[in-house]
Order: sequence, then structure tokens, then C-alpha cells
Amino acid sequence: MIRVGIVGGTGYTGVELLRLLAVHPQAELRAITSRKEAGTPVAEMFPSLRGLPQLAELKYSDAAQADLKGCEVVFFATPHGVAMAQARELTGAGVKIIDLAADFRLKDPAEFEQWYKMPHACPDLLAESVYGLPEMHRDAIRQARIVGNPGCYPTAIQLGFLPMVEAGVVDPAHLIADAKSGVSGAGRKAELGLMFSEAADNFRAYNVGGHRHHSEIVQGLNGIGPGHVTLVFTPHLTPMIRGIHATLYARLTKADVDLQQLYETRYAAEPFVDVMPPGSHPDTRSVRASNVCRIAVHRPQGGDIAVILAVVDNLVKGAAGQAVQNMNLMFGLPEETGLTAPPVVP
Amino acid sequence: MIRVGIVGGTGYTGVELLRLLAVHPQAELRAITSRKEAGTPVAEMFPSLRGLPQLAELKYSDAAQADLKGCEVVFFATPHGVAMAQARELTGAGVKIIDLAADFRLKDPAEFEQWYKMPHACPDLLAESVYGLPEMHRDAIRQARIVGNPGCYPTAIQLGFLPMVEAGVVDPAHLIADAKSGVSGAGRKAELGLMFSEAADNFRAYNVGGHRHHSEIVQGLNGIGPGHVTLVFTPHLTPMIRGIHATLYARLTKADVDLQQLYETRYAAEPFVDVMPPGSHPDTRSVRASNVCRIAVHRPQGGDIAVILAVVDNLVKGAAGQAVQNMNLMFGLPEETGLTAPPVVP
Amino acid sequence: MIRVGIVGGTGYTGVELLRLLAVHPQAELRAITSRKEAGTPVAEMFPSLRGLPQLAELKYSDAAQADLKGCEVVFFATPHGVAMAQARELTGAGVKIIDLAADFRLKDPAEFEQWYKMPHACPDLLAESVYGLPEMHRDAIRQARIVGNPGCYPTAIQLGFLPMVEAGVVDPAHLIADAKSGVSGAGRKAELGLMFSEAADNFRAYNVGGHRHHSEIVQGLNGIGPGHVTLVFTPHLTPMIRGIHATLYARLTKADVDLQQLYETRYAAEPFVDVMPPGSHPDTRSVRASNVCRIAVHRPQGGDIAVILAVVDNLVKGAAGQAVQNMNLMFGLPEETGLTAPPVVP
Amino acid sequence: MIRVGIVGGTGYTGVELLRLLAVHPQAELRAITSRKEAGTPVAEMFPSLRGLPQLAELKYSDAAQADLKGCEVVFFATPHGVAMAQARELTGAGVKIIDLAADFRLKDPAEFEQWYKMPHACPDLLAESVYGLPEMHRDAIRQARIVGNPGCYPTAIQLGFLPMVEAGVVDPAHLIADAKSGVSGAGRKAELGLMFSEAADNFRAYNVGGHRHHSEIVQGLNGIGPGHVTLVFTPHLTPMIRGIHATLYARLTKADVDLQQLYETRYAAEPFVDVMPPGSHPDTRSVRASNVCRIAVHRPQGGDIAVILAVVDNLVKGAAGQAVQNMNLMFGLPEETGLTAPPVVP
Repeated sequence: MIRVGIVGGTGYTGVELLRLLAVHPQAELRAITSRKEAGTPVAEMFPSLRGLPQLAELKYSDAAQADLKGCEVVFFATPHGVAMAQARELTGAGVKIIDLAADFRLKDPAEFEQWYKMPHACPDLLAESVYGLPEMHRDAIRQARIVGNPGCYPTAIQLGFLPMVEAGVVDPAHLIADAKSGVSGAGRKAELGLMFSEAADNFRAYNVGGHRHHSEIVQGLNGIGPGHVTLVFTPHLTPMIRGIHATLYARLTKADVDLQQLYETRYAAEPFVDVMPPGSHPDTRSVRASNVCRIAVHRPQGGDIAVILAVVDNLVKGAAGQAVQNMNLMFGLPEETGLTAPPVVP
Repeated sequence: MIRVGIVGGTGYTGVELLRLLAVHPQAELRAITSRKEAGTPVAEMFPSLRGLPQLAELKYSDAAQADLKGCEVVFFATPHGVAMAQARELTGAGVKIIDLAADFRLKDPAEFEQWYKMPHACPDLLAESVYGLPEMHRDAIRQARIVGNPGCYPTAIQLGFLPMVEAGVVDPAHLIADAKSGVSGAGRKAELGLMFSEAADNFRAYNVGGHRHHSEIVQGLNGIGPGHVTLVFTPHLTPMIRGIHATLYARLTKADVDLQQLYETRYAAEPFVDVMPPGSHPDTRSVRASNVCRIAVHRPQGGDIAVILAVVDNLVKGAAGQAVQNMNLMFGLPEETGLTAPPVVP
Repeated sequence: MIRVGIVGGTGYTGVELLRLLAVHPQAELRAITSRKEAGTPVAEMFPSLRGLPQLAELKYSDAAQADLKGCEVVFFATPHGVAMAQARELTGAGVKIIDLAADFRLKDPAEFEQWYKMPHACPDLLAESVYGLPEMHRDAIRQARIVGNPGCYPTAIQLGFLPMVEAGVVDPAHLIADAKSGVSGAGRKAELGLMFSEAADNFRAYNVGGHRHHSEIVQGLNGIGPGHVTLVFTPHLTPMIRGIHATLYARLTKADVDLQQLYETRYAAEPFVDVMPPGSHPDTRSVRASNVCRIAVHRPQGGDIAVILAVVDNLVKGAAGQAVQNMNLMFGLPEETGLTAPPVVP
Repeated sequence: MIRVGIVGGTGYTGVELLRLLAVHPQAELRAITSRKEAGTPVAEMFPSLRGLPQLAELKYSDAAQADLKGCEVVFFATPHGVAMAQARELTGAGVKIIDLAADFRLKDPAEFEQWYKMPHACPDLLAESVYGLPEMHRDAIRQARIVGNPGCYPTAIQLGFLPMVEAGVVDPAHLIADAKSGVSGAGRKAELGLMFSEAADNFRAYNVGGHRHHSEIVQGLNGIGPGHVTLVFTPHLTPMIRGIHATLYARLTKADVDLQQLYETRYAAEPFVDVMPPGSHPDTRSVRASNVCRIAVHRPQGGDIAVILAVVDNLVKGAAGQAVQNMNLMFGLPEETGLTAPPVVP
């Protein structure tokens, strides 16, 4: 059993980690921290967790008191900046780190500082850390001490663009990602724009001028194929709880490419990427509560623009599920361990 | 491994059975029938099921061709009337039956005919069948050849009223059940009133004059305590996918009863009934996709009316999950087998 | 043209007043105050109001600077406690007041203090103020200087119970109001429980132990018929934006009463109460964005419990619309002036 | 008063016409037809219309019996093919026609036949008919006998692209329209994919390979600027009732164009197009139940791709409201007559 700690388990990625790890056959939850909720049983905070034997004794503890060094791996489900502040001490004690925030996503500390408005606390650890998208960095993740778990949009968008960009069959300078997210992607926080009465029966774009995930996506796609990647990324808020739907547009530079074949081949061995049959339209609910990314490939009117549809559950493959997938890799477990529950439909 | 068949697996209770049984460690899906979809792989019908190794080979077959007699248990996720037509042949072949429709719920064939507009096909089998609410009939279920799986409303409402009525502390002649259901409770069928544009951002009562589940609830509560049960049952449609919230009202006849204690004691050993602490308000999502029924007990202003709140997921404890729980009992498995996945929140 | 002021126009009742008054043929919006938003055009705060000629010049102003005394009527769309603090000065200047908060709802200052945790600032003005439910107090409203606009739940529940209680055909000591509200009823504020990801696809009761509107309802129903009123009131949060559905239960004491006739007669002359045909189930959307209350009368199985269904839009008949209706009465206008736009369906 | 008839008033565009025309000061509803509902009062079909004096007498009548020739204008809120079958007879009798279906949208009868699978019944009338987008064809609409009212997607997408394409500042050969629609856009019909339990908490693209509105948009944009228009159009279904959000992408060919200025100038005199301030993100609810189209102009990272956001209410500016706007033009009324009610928010 892997001894697991969670720092900051009161948000949506935190409770999703609890949901997944509670039934993970190789994980033992040893500590979960929250300054504000220290002493509270997790099942009091989240009544959905009442009665689970694996969590029966689990209470939030203050980070200072928690025995994180007694864990083999610690997940950070915290705001940006927390993981990097504790990374040196924990890795020094032999603890592996999976950060679900952004501290270990952007390789360039300057870029991190630009977007997250704080200097990076440990550029050396950042340098050795691995970006936790298994479909791109599986081997490195296996060896990593620190994994920067990808953002939800970047997961869907990179998986969607990857085969085309890698194969060099599109113009990388004019990629367009029109992405739609469920509201839980914004986290568990009381903000006016995220209230039911504001977000329900409504649809809107936001941050069209610039979104933090932009750099992360460009970093991931750059260098995997010929040419420099430039991306227009338009995030939208859609009135659903979970789910990301990325609609991706790229200009084909090779007219005779068989996109369907390209995608099927690239992802043939991937346990969590499902390339759907030609003509498909994946819906977000088809991956609800599961770690799968489903992709469909289109080329409308046989023209020179490829349209790729990619869906993930932002809290699973876009956050906690992918983190568990990374843990499995880091500890030599079968990659799907604890992640086999089917999506919840309807 | 129990050899399992499903008749009529294209509705919501059918796909929910597939979701649950696909990861049930002791069940092996051998056959699933649908006249209309014969030959279609289940994962083509429900893309959420794509890639599940347990269902990889599973296709719908015509009922006539399906080897249902080779199964040890057959679930009927069909319209009313189908199970009773096949019950004699299957039980004759030693196959156990769990009917998720109403054929084996009402003990009185005349009452069945009144509500479902068809004569009962096998009153003798009806007589031996067991009503599949484990919290009331666990021992009988263990021995049963045929189980009539309760309706979704009746599950929540009976579990909510049960301890009070059993203990004889309320006036049974004026019970009121004000119940609210998610839209999936109406099944997977194209009806105008169930369309998104009709049911979203809207709330309404329906069938206030009389609902099929009324008799089933009264039958279940009658005789377990003193006095004859009369019930006013008001179902409502609420704009959510899954979930039932029953708000129950009863006039207390014993002023000094400790309701909280009564409920906690009655359900202390129940794996799927959670009596919440005093003052709680269970929300339906706290049981989403799980087999749990959560109950809270109130007595507003210390008056003589008890208010009980009970929530279930209509597709799990209110249908497919309870059916699996019954299967576990019928085959001597631990009751929670395959039903331990935590609720999905948010 | 009536010169109108609004104090505190940044919440949902405030923007709803703006929506209604912008097209009211006899109202001229002269001032709207908000400490926080002073200087901001209302159309910047609420883009839905962009381009309306009647609001083109309207900006929020600081309450201190606003010429409220130059208005003929001032609406208070504020938290509790604000209206009573300004009532003496404004009424002294000849300004009429319609308070959409609770300052002038409860006649007993002690009861006000108990529920709203502050002493009443002007019990004498409270004594002369009129409770603004036109269907009960039309004549008094016409003469009033100060109107306490009813709460949303109390509007639906009182209109629903009124004919039966008035006629003395039910046991007033055991009334039950099971009420369901859309999320906007909680106001425009960032609270965790009101977030989309918490409130969507979910249903729950709240404040079963006691809700502020309880006293208001009991006060309204007490004394209009024989006997003392006791009420169990169970509010629920339902995943829709607007709308209240009250399901009301009362024990009939007169077996042969014709409830349908009773309701139709009582409300025959009411412009905003629609008694639907026997067997109806009003849905909340049938009054969306309109000032109508629709009511249906049931007596399930011909038993001794009456079930009344009443729906209102909590922001219109339950707040801003009723306030405009009251203004019309106070200024001798036809009661329906500015309130004739049909409900928005779908 | 204009004598108005409606053919086929039982769908969403029909009831929306009723909602708008009931309070239109210059329209008098004389006839509404429905084969299936002949004899039914409209307020029985749509309880939201109960109690409206203007509709008090209005019943559906059989098309054969209805005195459509006694009307001055007839709206067709019917399936495709109905309006063209009656157009000759009605126009011959001096009746003007506004078709909300597709019969008079596509100028090329062959293209109509290709998409709608029926030959056009009256190519000569098609030739004289006018495409009812006032922002492009106002003068022609004023003179028209037959107006083909635009589709909902085409309204938002054409208004969004229009200024750029007209000004010749973008590459017309690679336009991309990523559009999201509320479910009411699919009409009032019982289809499985449109059910609440299927469409709620879900997001998906559809018809990526080809959608009927594609030709209509291309036809509208072609010829208004230099170069031939090629469009990729990706429609999506989003879990809301009303609203279309079009996110439009175009490659700028003139680097120094001031897009904000271009749009503001183009639409300065338009009563129903609102160009929002730089940096805005219009939400669909900001136009809910109103005839406004709001547009925001972006150029992310100062790059060469323009991103235009355009929102309409699919049932108003995208259907019934635009039809009324066209009627106003055809009868010499002020264009905004009957269309001034503010959007309904929240």
C-alpha cells in the first residue's frame, strides 16, 4: 500500500482525489491537510463521503502537524505557490510530489512569474520536474520525483492537437482552440460569476485576451513537430458541472493525410484515450466521472481545415484522475489501477 | 462468477445495470436483449461504455436467440408486462429473476391490473415472489426465485416512513409524501414534457390525483405497525438528471418519542441507509451514482408533526443498484459487493 | 409621471425593478443608489440593460448625494434594516416607501427583532405601515405611506392557503407548506451553497428547523378565519433560476366543500391570480418573468386532505412585480400598469 | 391595426410570436392554424398565455377554415415546405408573407432542394422574396411581399462576420464559426437527444460534417466583400433553453485595421445590434427574451486572427423577434415597435 498525503483537500480536486483514492486498491490515505478545517472529519465536510470505511478515520489536520514526510507521495490540491514552497523539504525526505496546481507546469520560471505573479521558489526542482501528461511523457513520469499535473484545458487541447502537430501535417502558426468548460473547472469558491443564478441557462466566453493555460498548451505542443506553435485559445463557461469540450481547428498542410488513421495509430496503446469512429461527436457526459479522453476527427466538406473534438472530465482526466494515473506510473503500478469505474450516464 | 442476463437493456435502468455489473467482481454478463437493437454492441449504443474490457464483446441480441436459460439470474429492465410473461419458463429452468418493472411489486393481482391495465400473467408466481426492499425483506430475498425490485419513489418513501410507522408513533391515516424526482426517473423516452426545453428551469407537480407508486407504498407500509395506512403522495418533476428527495410528514401520536434515536437504531446495521446527524439536510447529489439512502429527521418547532427527509439516486438505490443488492443477497454474496464506489460530487 | 427612486439597486430585486420600471408608462426613474457602485451607469453593471433609452442616463449614486426626497416613491431593494433607518426622514418629506426587505412585514417589533437580530428603528411607522399583499389589503395599500412588500415564499403560500383558511373549511392548526424555490430567491451574493457546481443537478431542503418567512406567513393567515394558525414550512432549493412552487396541505374540516368553486370565487376579480381548471398542475415557467400567481386545487382520492399548488416568479409577484403593483395602487393607477408582458416560455 | 395570421403556431417560434404579438400595439391576431389542435384555445395549449386579453378569444383553427386571406400578413411558423405551398394563393390575395422556416432563405432552388430534400414549389416567388436580415436588406424588406426570415445561427454568424467581410479586411476563404445553441433551437419536438436527461449537464458538437444553415450563411456573406467565402461551421448543443453564442475566427489581411471602430461604425444606427466596449464578453442571458444581438471584438495577443463574439436569443432575434421586426418594416412602422421589453436577467 502506498502511503498517500493530500495537502489542501477541501476544493473540488481535493474531494475528487478522495473519491478516487478511497477505492484505489494500492493507496492508503494517511494525511489530509487544511488549515481552516483542521480537526474536521472529511465526511463532515463532504457528506457524500460518509460511511466509506477507507475514510472513516480521516480528518483534516493542520499542515504543520501532519506527518507528510511519513508519506510516500503527496498530492497538492492547493492554490498556486504552495507546492513549490514545500517541495524541497518533502523531496529531501524522499517523498514524491504530484502538484495539481501550476507550480511545476511551466518550465520557464519567468513565464511562471508572468502568469502567476510570484517568483518561482525552486527553479532547480522545477528543472527536474516532469510535466504529467502520460501520453507525452510516460517514461519520464515513471522516474520523476516531482510531477506537475496538467491543467484541465491543456489536457484536452494537447491530446487533441498532438498527433497532427507531431506529424507535421498542419500549419502550427495558426492553431485555434475553442474550448468549453463546466463550472467546476473554476474551483470550489464563492464568486459571483460562478453562482447558479448567474451561470445557469447562460453561455459566455471569458479571458479571450489571455488565459493562464495558454502558455502551458503552447509549451507542450512546441518542439514536438516542425515549426513554431502559435495558438488562439478561447475559453467559454458552459452551464454544466463537469466536462471540457475542446473544438480544435488547424489548417492542413498535407492534403492527403488520413487523419483518422493518424489518430488511431498514435493512441492505439493509450489506455485513456479513445479515438472514436469517423463522423462521431463525443459528448462530455460520455466521460463523466472517468479518466477517459474521447476524440473525434473531422474534415468538413473535405476542405483544408481539420476539426478535432476532444472531451475530458475536467476533475478526472483534467485533474485528480490524471494525478492518480501519474501516481500509478511513479510507483510501478498498472496505469489503470483504481481508474476503471465506467463513466456515469445519464 | 454469476452468469447474468439482462432483458431490455436500452433504457436508463438497463445502462445503469451495465455500469454497475461491468465492475462487479462476481458477475459475468452473458446476454443482453433488445429486439430493436439486436446485433448492436452495447458500447455503440452507449459510448460511455466504450473500452470497458468486461463489455467488449457484449452485443444486444434478440430475446428469442439469447441464451437466457443459460444464465443464473436475469434482470428485466423492460416495460411492465414483459417479466411476468417469461417468468414461468425462466424459473422453470432454474433461473432467478429480478424485475425492475412493476410485475412483481403489487401482491394483489387486481390492484396490479387496475394500475397497469393488464391482467397479471402468473398470480401464483406473484404470490411466491418477494418485494425487493432489503431493509424490510432481507431474509425472504435471500430465498427468493423472483424479486420485484421496488420503484424509485417507493424506495425513498418507505425507507423514510418505516421506523415511525413500524414503531407506531404516528397517525398512519394521514401520511403525506411530498416527493421530487429528477427527470431520468421517467425513463429514456422521447416525450414532450421531458424535453430539456420543457423541463429545465422549471418545476411542477404531476399526477397529484393518483400515481402508480401510491399503492406500492401503501402496501409496503401497511401492516408493519398498528392502524391502517392512508397516504397523500405528491410527485414533482425537478430539473436535475438523477435523484429523488422525499419530504415526509406525519402526525406524531407519542409526544415524547426520540425520533433520531428511533431511526439510528432501526438502521444501525443497514449498509445502505445513512441516518444523518440531527439538523441535517441531505442533498440528492450526496448519493449521486451510489446505492445509499440518506435520511434526516426533523420536528420543526418541537411540534407534533415529524418531517423526514430522504434522498436516493433513483437509478441506483431506486433501481439498478438495489437490483444488484438483491442479486448479492440471492447468491449469498456480501451485500455491498460491487456497490462501494463513492457518490460523484460535484 | 411618478418620480421614482431605488435604494440599493444592485441585487436581483433591484435589477428586476429596473427591468419593470424601464417600460412602465407612468414611472420615471430619478435616482438609484449604491454605495459601492456610485458613479457606475446601471447598464455597465447589468449589460442586459444596455441601450434602453429610459435608463441611458441612469447611474448609481451614493445614498447621501441622491435626491431621494425629490422622488414621490422610493423602493428599498436593500438588506434588512436599511429602509426603517430612512423611513422617518423620507415620509416626513412626503415620499412614499415600498420596502422589498423585511422591515415592514412583521407587525410585532419583538418578532422582527427575534428573526432579524436588530431592534426595530421606528415601531410607530411600522404600526401604520401596510403589508403589501393586494389580494388581502388592497384598500389599505391605496392609502399607505409605507408598504412592506411580502417575501417570495409568503406570497405564494398565503395566496394558496387564503381561501380555505378564510372560509374556515380546514384545520388551521396543522397547515403544511412544502415549498421549492429557484436559486435567485437567495439573492445576488457569492455563497458557496449557491454556486452552480453546488446547486445544479441537486435538490435539498434547508432551514427545516425554522425560516424567517414562517412568522410572516402565520401572521398573514392568522385572524382571517376561525382558529389559530400553526404551520410547518419546509423550504427547498431547486436547480432553477426563478420560480417558487408551493405545495400546500390542509386537513379539511368540512367534507362537502367545493374547493374549486371556493377558489374561483375568491379570486374572480383578481388581475394577478389565476385559478386553473380542475386537475391542473401549474409549472413555474408558466409565470416566468410575469406577475401572475397560478393556483390549482386538488383533493387526492377524495380524501380529507386538500392539496393546493401555487406558483409565482419569486422576483416578480414574489418581489419587484408586486412592489410595482403596490405602487400602482398607491398612486391610483390601474393595477396592471406596466405589468402586462406575458410570461417567457420556453 | 395590422391583421395578422399565424400558420402553425404550436412550436416554439409560434408561441414566441404569440408572446410578442400579444403586446404589439399595432398588431391584431386574427387567425392561428394548427391541423392537430384545431378548436383548442391557445391558452389551453400554452398556460403561460392564460388571462391575456388580446388572446382571450384566440383558438387554433384548421388551415382550410382559417380566414388567412383576410389577414394583411401571415407568419409561417411551420416545418419547411408549408409556406411555399401557400405563397402564391396568399400573395395573390394581397397578403404579405413572413416565413420563419427555410422556404425563402436560399436563393438557389437547387441548393434548397439539396438541403431540404424537396423541389422548390415556386421559384419565381423565391426570386422576388427578400432575405429578412434588416441589417443587410432593410430597404428591400420594406418593399417585399415575401420575406424569408433568417435562421438562428445565420443571424448571429452573419451579423458577427458582416463588418469584416464587407470591409475586405479578412481572408474570406477560411472563416470559422464555432457556434453554441440552446436546446430550444432544435424546436418543440420529442427527440431522444433533446431530452433533459440527455442534454442537461452535457455538451456536444453535432452535424460537424454539414448543417443546413451553412449554405445560408455563405450565401449571405458572399459578394458583400472581395473574394469568395468559404466557411467551417461547427454547431454545438449547450444545456440552456435559449441563446446562441457564436465565436467567430477570421485571419486578418490588413494588420492595422481598427476592428472596434469598424464594428461600431457599421452598426451605429442599428437599433438591435449592440457593439460592446473593447474587452467585453457578452453572455447569452444578456439578450434573453429580447431582440438584441450583442457583439464583442477581440484580437488575442495582437495576432492576425480576429475573434468575434456574437450572441442572440435564438427565438427572438434568431426567429420570432426578427420576424416582427420585418413586419414593422413591411408596414412602415417604427422598427422597434413591440420589441422594446428589456432582456430577462437573471
